[in-house]
Amino acid sequence: MSSETLVIDVPLRWGDMDAYGHVNNVQVVRIMEEARVAAFGPPAGTGEAGFEAPVPVFTELPEGTQALVAENHVKYRSPLAYRTVPARVEIWVEKVAAASLTVGYAIRDGVDGRLCAEASTVLAFFHEPSGRLLRISAEQRELLRGYVRGA
Amino acid sequence: MSSETLVIDVPLRWGDMDAYGHVNNVQVVRIMEEARVAAFGPPAGTGEAGFEAPVPVFTELPEGTQALVAENHVKYRSPLAYRTVPARVEIWVEKVAAASLTVGYAIRDGVDGRLCAEASTVLAFFHEPSGRLLRISAEQRELLRGYVRGA
Amino acid sequence: MSSETLVIDVPLRWGDMDAYGHVNNVQVVRIMEEARVAAFGPPAGTGEAGFEAPVPVFTELPEGTQALVAENHVKYRSPLAYRTVPARVEIWVEKVAAASLTVGYAIRDGVDGRLCAEASTVLAFFHEPSGRLLRISAEQRELLRGYVRGA
Amino acid sequence: MSSETLVIDVPLRWGDMDAYGHVNNVQVVRIMEEARVAAFGPPAGTGEAGFEAPVPVFTELPEGTQALVAENHVKYRSPLAYRTVPARVEIWVEKVAAASLTVGYAIRDGVDGRLCAEASTVLAFFHEPSGRLLRISAEQRELLRGYVRGA
Repeated sequence: MSSETLVIDVPLRWGDMDAYGHVNNVQVVRIMEEARVAAFGPPAGTGEAGFEAPVPVFTELPEGTQALVAENHVKYRSPLAYRTVPARVEIWVEKVAAASLTVGYAIRDGVDGRLCAEASTVLAFFHEPSGRLLRISAEQRELLRGYVRGA
Repeated sequence: MSSETLVIDVPLRWGDMDAYGHVNNVQVVRIMEEARVAAFGPPAGTGEAGFEAPVPVFTELPEGTQALVAENHVKYRSPLAYRTVPARVEIWVEKVAAASLTVGYAIRDGVDGRLCAEASTVLAFFHEPSGRLLRISAEQRELLRGYVRGA
Repeated sequence: MSSETLVIDVPLRWGDMDAYGHVNNVQVVRIMEEARVAAFGPPAGTGEAGFEAPVPVFTELPEGTQALVAENHVKYRSPLAYRTVPARVEIWVEKVAAASLTVGYAIRDGVDGRLCAEASTVLAFFHEPSGRLLRISAEQRELLRGYVRGA
Repeated sequence: MSSETLVIDVPLRWGDMDAYGHVNNVQVVRIMEEARVAAFGPPAGTGEAGFEAPVPVFTELPEGTQALVAENHVKYRSPLAYRTVPARVEIWVEKVAAASLTVGYAIRDGVDGRLCAEASTVLAFFHEPSGRLLRISAEQRELLRGYVRGA
């Protein structure tokens, strides 16, 4: 695990299991969403105040801006078992482009550390009033700097 | 809050919000399920080992037995806001009958303690091999004893 | 089935099943939400145009008004099996009060008609700009009239 | 749209919307699951009998075999609006390998046909008793034959 990696505990829910008795593949994508929100904060304009996120890139979005998922890619390596122990999600930044951000994840069993999924998400910031994507700002680059793998 | 009450922190998920921007009414019922599992343990035969529950009534069910929900009743008192701070769920036992158990809940905002919902669930234990409901056993009554409100 | 009853087909999803292999108790409450939306229309201000609802009470809410769930009550009568055949939900109005509406449901297996749950929901209409509940209007009473059981 | 493509209507749910008021990115992956189940049938051993699927590859799996998702890849092209009109999902087979199957999807708005997401899923069939992946059988290849794009 490189030094740029944030480790986030994502609690599982009993209802995440499907009829096969493991965490459902779709719920793994929900866990990715939760890890992003824990790392970058709830997107501005949604929800109410909570714990401060370690890298509050979402919290500090300009008014009227949505954090949109442009791409999700998940490779399921082994079934994720439901436990009352949270899954351990390693999350980092893979790439900062002009107007998008790629996040990487490794999702591990919270007890034995087994790798259950490797994944990535491409994010873009959409400014509703103007109908345009925003460029990644200097302030955002600064916030993300310590978390870019291989930078 | 009476002395028989367990207090459980249930983490919210960003996706629990609906288009109105609050935790959806259905997801409040999901939060009740999570509070039960945290209090009584994941039902035997589902998931893998985790933290021990304070009142492991579900964990110690006889093999082939399912914890079934017979009734859910929720009164929504004020909208539950999404936060990265968990909801605070007070949970207790309202009644232990011959073959069922009634659980009570108060669901509160994790920051200001505001009451968001009052609820109850009737549970029964179904023994699949015999196709019959099980009577609440002496061991279960013993486990539950300290948590029966007004007992 | 009385003449005031609307019958709504609600498609199930494979992911509605939990680790017990039946439709999860929380997802039954989701099915109730879906039946309400099919009967009364998607609440004004959410989503985009679709099929017209038979009793468009939600669709025609004044701007800035939310349809809030004040109470949910579900009695689970037998496990609801997942099938690619939709569940059959009978829905009617139990009561129209000054500022609330009670809806009743019977949720049945889509193949054999077995009763799986009986339920009710109390709804209120919240006008955000003024922070007040709206009284049920004469127009709403007129729309609902044919669906009030025992009226 | 090539001749090998199946077109599946997947009903949306009001609760699929998130706080941004569009179908949540995770729920798009749920819609992919639903389209697979509609096309290939519910996996053997889960749920009860329903409509026959057009290409019953999942329904006819040998006993004790699970259809596992090995990989999901989604490119979100434009927000998917919630409507009471089902999403239109085009689904086809991209590749049949020795022990896996790649499915492709285009997810479109059910009214104006706008492309909302392009996606693919790699599936493998896991035989629980032996703990091994099954090879794609001659019967499965035969069933899938008409749906392999560019074959």
